[in-house]
Amino acid sequence: MLSEILERNRSTGPLVHCISNYVTANDCVNLLLASGASGIMADDADEVEEITAMCQALVINLGTPNPRRLDAMLKAGKAANRLGHPVVFDPVGVGGSALRREAAARLLDAVRFSVIRGNASEIRTLVDGSAAHRGVDADTDCQDTTDLARQLARSSGAVVVLTGAEDIVTDGQRTYLVKNGHPMMRTVTGAGCQLSALIGAYVAASPEKPLDSTLAAVCAMGLCGERAHHRMTQLDGNASYRNYIIDAMFRLDGTALEEGGNYEIL
Amino acid sequence: MLSEILERNRSTGPLVHCISNYVTANDCVNLLLASGASGIMADDADEVEEITAMCQALVINLGTPNPRRLDAMLKAGKAANRLGHPVVFDPVGVGGSALRREAAARLLDAVRFSVIRGNASEIRTLVDGSAAHRGVDADTDCQDTTDLARQLARSSGAVVVLTGAEDIVTDGQRTYLVKNGHPMMRTVTGAGCQLSALIGAYVAASPEKPLDSTLAAVCAMGLCGERAHHRMTQLDGNASYRNYIIDAMFRLDGTALEEGGNYEIL
Amino acid sequence: MLSEILERNRSTGPLVHCISNYVTANDCVNLLLASGASGIMADDADEVEEITAMCQALVINLGTPNPRRLDAMLKAGKAANRLGHPVVFDPVGVGGSALRREAAARLLDAVRFSVIRGNASEIRTLVDGSAAHRGVDADTDCQDTTDLARQLARSSGAVVVLTGAEDIVTDGQRTYLVKNGHPMMRTVTGAGCQLSALIGAYVAASPEKPLDSTLAAVCAMGLCGERAHHRMTQLDGNASYRNYIIDAMFRLDGTALEEGGNYEIL
Repeated sequence: MLSEILERNRSTGPLVHCISNYVTANDCVNLLLASGASGIMADDADEVEEITAMCQALVINLGTPNPRRLDAMLKAGKAANRLGHPVVFDPVGVGGSALRREAAARLLDAVRFSVIRGNASEIRTLVDGSAAHRGVDADTDCQDTTDLARQLARSSGAVVVLTGAEDIVTDGQRTYLVKNGHPMMRTVTGAGCQLSALIGAYVAASPEKPLDSTLAAVCAMGLCGERAHHRMTQLDGNASYRNYIIDAMFRLDGTALEEGGNYEIL
Repeated sequence: MLSEILERNRSTGPLVHCISNYVTANDCVNLLLASGASGIMADDADEVEEITAMCQALVINLGTPNPRRLDAMLKAGKAANRLGHPVVFDPVGVGGSALRREAAARLLDAVRFSVIRGNASEIRTLVDGSAAHRGVDADTDCQDTTDLARQLARSSGAVVVLTGAEDIVTDGQRTYLVKNGHPMMRTVTGAGCQLSALIGAYVAASPEKPLDSTLAAVCAMGLCGERAHHRMTQLDGNASYRNYIIDAMFRLDGTALEEGGNYEIL
Repeated sequence: MLSEILERNRSTGPLVHCISNYVTANDCVNLLLASGASGIMADDADEVEEITAMCQALVINLGTPNPRRLDAMLKAGKAANRLGHPVVFDPVGVGGSALRREAAARLLDAVRFSVIRGNASEIRTLVDGSAAHRGVDADTDCQDTTDLARQLARSSGAVVVLTGAEDIVTDGQRTYLVKNGHPMMRTVTGAGCQLSALIGAYVAASPEKPLDSTLAAVCAMGLCGERAHHRMTQLDGNASYRNYIIDAMFRLDGTALEEGGNYEIL
């Protein structure tokens, strides 16, 4: 199943519109290209509707936010919804400022997301924030990240990916635990941003099964993190490792993903 | 001839002012440094005239556009014209939005470009747009990319580079077909942006022959793409390849370019 | 002594808020991660006070400036001062435009910096500018970079790092000359930006001795430049070298820094 999703992305090569931070933008596009998809960055409100219309998916990344980029995100998100394109949300550092929390709340209100990907703290902020925002009594003491992810999936209608030492992928009904990945990935800025971009491509290529497509992307990224680590020499550090992850994605085929994908159903 | 242009760039080390997108900015500056030139990015209208005045060339790249950056482009372009500096235009994704088309039209009206570099679709958009804009009957059905490039060269007065599987370089009179390059270059974001930056450096170093300087830059970039591919291992993908292109530029000397440059006169 | 500072950074892992240019942002964060610290980029005035409050240091980098980012720099700098966080200033290209000179003057007036790092021309511009600004008769003919650095250290109260073929580190009283580094570092964009980010981390980890922490960061970065060069092959150029510097930082331990640190007291 993972194999099929990877191959569909390679054969269809979706174009992904990314509204992203400037720190990891280059890596995101190169990771998309490595996967067989491609990416275009555009973040001005005057053009994002047109750019989104020529793409097959939209990925909204909350890093280095500002009010002008938020306007563009809202416009692009609504346009993608009208067109039926999958929209991925990566709430980078959402707990870090009111600007980010409010941006996230406005986006969750105005845009229907196909997938939301964040770490435990980011997902928790969305659950608390959106709960408060909707007047629902949020379980702010929730310790179980699986419950947290399921809760956001149910309230948002999106597939939720909560990444950490192990990753959770859930649509609120079915839940997967992904054991791919390597601790070395935490030493590279933008591994999460790259995963969010890849999810956009995979879901665009197989829109009829967003949960499985997302699972495949999470497994693929984690597996590339493993393979990249396997390749490291005694002199290599996180910069070479960053390149090796993208290289591994370039080389990854369906058979390798099918064999290396390491997940279970919860 | 190619050798002399490369060496002139190495010996004079021009400083190139880039108004660029944030996706490929880092690669553009490192490619310039690899060639022996150097680069400075500055995109605020309040400072671009001064920054351009301390440089020897200006490269305007239309990626990730917004109205503020367009103001800066117009100001910088006019200042560079007054100073007699070569100005290169890279109309990234110009067909993708009205914002980009209008920005291109305003730039083509207000700024005299030494070189314009784009792919077939971008050059076609400029030909159609500027033709419509000037009330001329554009040949919108033109299939021949050579004619397209020549047409833009004649209407704009710029050397035009149309990059693809093979590259066309023309000033409207003389036309070269460049066969350097490798398909792998399409898997790297910003190879085109880097070429545009390099053209700025080469033309600044040899301003008396913009066509030949541009030809040399196109051959050099393509040759580096070939050499970078030659170096790839079974584990390398587009991220390592991206580095290898810049590395190859760092190592490229006049003799190698003279021998490896692969072009013919059309 | 250098060893202890490196190890303190690794064991405490400070989070550094960077307000940076978009050209070198990715490398700065990856260099921080390589060192054991981490980084967050945020440059909108609406959020920088909150972001700075969750970090342990602030690094203000003047590359690709604009009025909006300057507002953010001023707000963040004042907030960091209130919180007692170290603030590092990297006046990239400050002599290049009135926008940059005025931004630097406003920042030096409003923010108390722990460390200022620049090349000779940048430090000279700050000395002249701030002197003129304060109505003091600046020694604009000063040839001696050591005097220049001491002068700025005394007038600003900051530790000053003046980088070049050899680097000067001074608080106006004690002065070090650092002989680490390699000429190849000049072929990489952002080596200076990365050093400034690293200084922020080291000073945050050992805030009781800003001069020694800064010295350790300067030695560490230079030593990584040497080690990266040692690793280069006949095919490698500045792109691989860029990665090798960050890799070397990832691998650098206290013992190696203690042995390889090459400095003397002036």
